[in-house]
Amino acid sequence: MTRQELFEQIKIKKSYLCVGLDTDINKIPKHLLNEEDPIFEFNKQIIDATQEYCVAYKPNIAFYEALGSRGWESLQKTIEYIPENIFTIADAKRGDIGNTSSLYAKAFFENMNFDSITVAPYMGEDSVTPFLAFKNKWVILLAHTSNIGSQDFQLFEENGKPLYQKVIEKSQQWASPDQLMFVVGATRADKIGEIRKLAPDNFFLVPGVGAQGGDLKEVSKFGMNKACGLLVNSSRGIIYSSNEADFADKANAEAKQLQLQMSSYLEMFL
Amino acid sequence: MTRQELFEQIKIKKSYLCVGLDTDINKIPKHLLNEEDPIFEFNKQIIDATQEYCVAYKPNIAFYEALGSRGWESLQKTIEYIPENIFTIADAKRGDIGNTSSLYAKAFFENMNFDSITVAPYMGEDSVTPFLAFKNKWVILLAHTSNIGSQDFQLFEENGKPLYQKVIEKSQQWASPDQLMFVVGATRADKIGEIRKLAPDNFFLVPGVGAQGGDLKEVSKFGMNKACGLLVNSSRGIIYSSNEADFADKANAEAKQLQLQMSSYLEMFL
Repeated sequence: MTRQELFEQIKIKKSYLCVGLDTDINKIPKHLLNEEDPIFEFNKQIIDATQEYCVAYKPNIAFYEALGSRGWESLQKTIEYIPENIFTIADAKRGDIGNTSSLYAKAFFENMNFDSITVAPYMGEDSVTPFLAFKNKWVILLAHTSNIGSQDFQLFEENGKPLYQKVIEKSQQWASPDQLMFVVGATRADKIGEIRKLAPDNFFLVPGVGAQGGDLKEVSKFGMNKACGLLVNSSRGIIYSSNEADFADKANAEAKQLQLQMSSYLEMFL
Repeated sequence: MTRQELFEQIKIKKSYLCVGLDTDINKIPKHLLNEEDPIFEFNKQIIDATQEYCVAYKPNIAFYEALGSRGWESLQKTIEYIPENIFTIADAKRGDIGNTSSLYAKAFFENMNFDSITVAPYMGEDSVTPFLAFKNKWVILLAHTSNIGSQDFQLFEENGKPLYQKVIEKSQQWASPDQLMFVVGATRADKIGEIRKLAPDNFFLVPGVGAQGGDLKEVSKFGMNKACGLLVNSSRGIIYSSNEADFADKANAEAKQLQLQMSSYLEMFL
């Protein structure tokens, strides 16, 4: 999917919501465990219930990998089920060199037709560029994450410049905003404003709204650019809002509520 | 496997060789493609041919992931086939937070019984510690890698201290040398000597000898500590030394030659 197409979807749906498919066999409603593939069945119902209100889905690959080859089958079915006009993110945080990166790219972009993958920057340019060889596929590079440990190395400073800033500046030499997004945590909205100055045109994938405590309005105010430039993720707040038979209805209601807020923020800040 | 048990194996085999199982369906001998599971069949014969001379196997997870659920089955069979007295490394370079890391740990330490996993440090402490909750399982943290891109961020300096040094120092607060190794590239052996001073007791996993150009004797001289402290990896140089019917014999000969060198370096430098 191109940047323009993504922006079109945002305008059509009045939403920049990404739904995180962190599907945990221990957390899904018990009645689904009788299905042949409970993980896929859960995802399918969540997708049916939320696709009207979101522009992206983000399966967290660890949840599928933890189930071995069966998990990979559920993931494959899930990605095939997601409608084509919805952007897909493999939240895999891969990062390795050269031909190894190419194989990860093949796994997620060719075999599974994801639009994008999250990538860790530590190994540098040759761990990122192999993903860029795939047309209209995206790298979403970890920049400033929202977890406690983000302070350990991401704030390491050279001449007053933190590492995350170096990552954002350097990586823009490798790819245009048509193929490069950044993961920017939402725990401090003013920080998103600072980071927006470093990368005016790139989309930011923002986790941490909801369960991790970010404020959607603040994030939108400080983070939005003229083509929206935000994908704001919610996982548990949507997919686990009920663990009874009504889980899909509840997910629908949660997604709808976020979309309504986003709709007003798009009017306010775009 | 404990650090003491690993050192015992090194002394018994007079070897600190790790064989990288970067098994590529496009590179293995053609006659294996008739097998039901060519990847596993290749690995099985490589393991049979090299286990006498090595103390560790390191499957590069990307190669299996690129084959989807079938790849995961080949990986599972491979890890089950590796003898118990040989240390196993999931070269996965994972790195995510909290419960996601726990799921990766579950995937590799419980489902597949790997002894260790390579981890990227960018997200900090809470992306590393979930792996440490598993007894006698190891994190092998990326510190100073051997690829070109390692210069992009790993040499970023705060008050004269490069990031890789910060990673090595900080992470030693999280885990003892009984659960923490570092990936240290072999492209400059004197650098390994410097890094040894930062982490006197930790094992280093050293890729880059052979295809990537490091010199085994120099690496051993500068990198060894009193309990060896080195696992030196060779992948393509061993497993693809022939792509004919004699591939296992050739792999055997290559591994034996490296073990012979290592045997003499253990006498010289230990």
